[in-house]
Amino acid sequence: MRIKLTLAYDGTDFCGWQSQKNGRSVQQEVEEAVFKLTGKRAKVTGSGRTDAGVHAVGQVAHLDTDFPCPAQKFYKALNPLLPGDVKALSSEEAPAGFNACASAKKKTYRYSFYVTETENPLYMRYAARVYPAPDEALMKAACAEFIGEHDFAAFRASGSSAKTTVRTVYGAEITKSCGVTFLTVCGSGFLYNMVRIMAGAIIGAGQGRLSAEDIRAALENGARPKEIKTMPACGLCLMSAEYF
Amino acid sequence: MRIKLTLAYDGTDFCGWQSQKNGRSVQQEVEEAVFKLTGKRAKVTGSGRTDAGVHAVGQVAHLDTDFPCPAQKFYKALNPLLPGDVKALSSEEAPAGFNACASAKKKTYRYSFYVTETENPLYMRYAARVYPAPDEALMKAACAEFIGEHDFAAFRASGSSAKTTVRTVYGAEITKSCGVTFLTVCGSGFLYNMVRIMAGAIIGAGQGRLSAEDIRAALENGARPKEIKTMPACGLCLMSAEYF
Repeated sequence: MRIKLTLAYDGTDFCGWQSQKNGRSVQQEVEEAVFKLTGKRAKVTGSGRTDAGVHAVGQVAHLDTDFPCPAQKFYKALNPLLPGDVKALSSEEAPAGFNACASAKKKTYRYSFYVTETENPLYMRYAARVYPAPDEALMKAACAEFIGEHDFAAFRASGSSAKTTVRTVYGAEITKSCGVTFLTVCGSGFLYNMVRIMAGAIIGAGQGRLSAEDIRAALENGARPKEIKTMPACGLCLMSAEYF
Repeated sequence: MRIKLTLAYDGTDFCGWQSQKNGRSVQQEVEEAVFKLTGKRAKVTGSGRTDAGVHAVGQVAHLDTDFPCPAQKFYKALNPLLPGDVKALSSEEAPAGFNACASAKKKTYRYSFYVTETENPLYMRYAARVYPAPDEALMKAACAEFIGEHDFAAFRASGSSAKTTVRTVYGAEITKSCGVTFLTVCGSGFLYNMVRIMAGAIIGAGQGRLSAEDIRAALENGARPKEIKTMPACGLCLMSAEYF
């Protein structure tokens, strides 16, 4: 039986989703918990990798098991075996042919930041500090440049191994709540560091360090202006992966 | 010169406000930073102690120094010398006779909780998990019982050394925002664990485990019913101390 798991984690103390020789990964913690529960080693495949320090409330993963437990209850059996900073929120039997990575059609990320001159210890774990305050209308104009199918070559970190750099962004929205500003981005998929670089461009545009036209030009010519910073990992959270 | 400091801290990795022989306290970290800045040891007095794991966004403290720096800029000089989980948000010259502890007239605490059957790693640092969902009207009725001057003997932890257990609660309100429920309590002062025990009573009333009448009786006779649990420290945050 293939099980589809939805996972939430605080990425602060992880080297990222993917198992590595050195460092504590989310994937490895989930695989260990599955082994403790079922007595068998199983590979846990995520909808995609999240980097060191990046959080998730809707990471989707699959694994194959013959453990005699209804799929809907699998996550409850798994949770006591997981550490406090990663938990399964639900589980179900995956439809035929389902692959958490290959079948993903759409992903939503949220980038959170707070605006203040002085660091606030109660925000810093889940949001980046931004100062001076970015203008909301300028940020929204910058968001609009990203909508649609583009070549995001200028918006990925070096070391990215993706075959194509063309992606479709379905939505990029700015909202505010509880003292935090959220940039919510929904797309067909994202390149290495793409959301953090987009956030840097949008916040930079809001602060007047670059214009919406500069973003348009970067999407057209594939070169990233030096004004666009990669925002820190702590502000990023994988909200959902959708499969239709 | 006496300086009034406003501090924010993530209490997770502290043994509490007050310096102790074993454990890392907020007070000690601030005193160390003051020593690094001024070259002199100075006692930093808080508006009150917060327990291990309890957070603050508006702890007020005072210290005496002859360091040649305008009082309004003192916090900016201090912050680079403080660890990431405690920062000063502002500083000013204290009025004559000011004492952060003795002069405090009013304090506001917030207790945060989220309602879900399954633990969520992204809430657990700053909110307690509650399940099943408490009824909001029942919680509000329970809140009303606390308003006014009462003997809170039933609502303090053993080991409390306060001379009198009479306190005045000015407000106790339930609000919801960003997926979290907040109990905001404002009072003349609070006994050891008093807000966490009040939160346990109010949430318990919301879950139907006790009634508003049970709370009234406990305030009258000084005995705590066994249905009232002390809620975990992680949900508690000192919001402000006021001095008029």
